[in-house]
Amino acid sequence: MESLERTLDFLARTPHVLRALLAGLDEGWLAADEGPGTYSALDVVGHLIHGEDTDWVPRSEHILAHGEAVPFARFDREAMRAAPVRSMEELLDSFERRRAESLARIRELALTPSVLERRGRHPELGPVTLAQLLSTWVVHDLAHLAQITRVLAKARAPEIGPWTAYFRVLGDRS
Amino acid sequence: MESLERTLDFLARTPHVLRALLAGLDEGWLAADEGPGTYSALDVVGHLIHGEDTDWVPRSEHILAHGEAVPFARFDREAMRAAPVRSMEELLDSFERRRAESLARIRELALTPSVLERRGRHPELGPVTLAQLLSTWVVHDLAHLAQITRVLAKARAPEIGPWTAYFRVLGDRS
Repeated sequence: MESLERTLDFLARTPHVLRALLAGLDEGWLAADEGPGTYSALDVVGHLIHGEDTDWVPRSEHILAHGEAVPFARFDREAMRAAPVRSMEELLDSFERRRAESLARIRELALTPSVLERRGRHPELGPVTLAQLLSTWVVHDLAHLAQITRVLAKARAPEIGPWTAYFRVLGDRS
Repeated sequence: MESLERTLDFLARTPHVLRALLAGLDEGWLAADEGPGTYSALDVVGHLIHGEDTDWVPRSEHILAHGEAVPFARFDREAMRAAPVRSMEELLDSFERRRAESLARIRELALTPSVLERRGRHPELGPVTLAQLLSTWVVHDLAHLAQITRVLAKARAPEIGPWTAYFRVLGDRS
C-alpha cells in the first residue's frame, strides 16, 4: 500500500478501536490515571479531539501556506482539562466525527509525493516535512492507545495478586 | 457493575479491538517485532489463542477440580511459534471464536463470590485465587494490546524524524 494511503487507512481505524475498547466501561475505570498530571482514558480521548481541532490538519495546511517561514503554533497538551466535562460516549462520538472530517480534508488536499516532502517549522523541533507530520499522527494515535491500555491494566493490578510480577507494562512509566 | 460481569464484559471486547486495529494492515507491519525473541502483532494474536486453549479456562476448571493440591501445568509463552503459519485474518477469526467459547464456558460454571475465592496453585507463584486468575486474564489482554500498539508505533518511528523525541513509548522495553 502506498504510504499516504496506509497512513489514512490507519487513522480511520482509531475511532473504532477506541469505541470497541472503551464504550460502556465503568466510569471509575475510565477516570483512572497514573497519578497527578497523568492522563486517564477520558483525558486521552479529549486530547485526541483537541489534536484534530488544532494539530494535524491545521499544521498540514500551515506547511502548505507558510513552508518554513512561520513556525507552527504550539500544541497545548493539557487543553482537554479546560474543556467542559463530557461522558465517554460524547467524547467517542465527537472524536469519530472530527477524525472523519480531518481525513476528508487531507484527501481534498490531494497530496502528491513532492508536496509531502515540503517542510514546515516546528516551534521546538525545527524543520519537519509534511510526510513526517502525517506519520507522527499515526504514531501519536498508537502511543495513546498504548497509554490507555497501560492505564487500564494498572487500574486492575490490585486484583491480580502475585501475577503482577509477570507484567512489565505495570511498571512502565506514565 | 459486579466484578465478574465487568471482567466478562471486558474480555468480550478484545477480539473486536484487535480486528479494528489489525485486520487488513500491511503484512510487513504485522510481522514487525522489537528484536530477536520478541513478539510481532501476529505472534501476539497467536499467543492469545494459545491462552484460550491452555490457560484461562483450563486453569479455572483446574482450580475447581483440584484446588491447591495439584499445581497448574506451565504455560508455554512461545507455543505460537510452533503453530502453522496463519494469516492475520485467520488468527483473528480463530481468536474471536475461541474467546466466545471461553466466555460461554465461564458463564456455564455460574461462579459465585465464594467459589471465586477458591485457591489454586501456580507452578511458580504459589497460591492464587480464581478471582485473581480471571482478573489476570483482563490484565493480560490489556498488556498485549499495549504491546501491539507499542510495536506498531516503533515500526513507524523511522518515518517521523525529529518527533521521535516526544514519544516515550518508543523507548519502552519489549
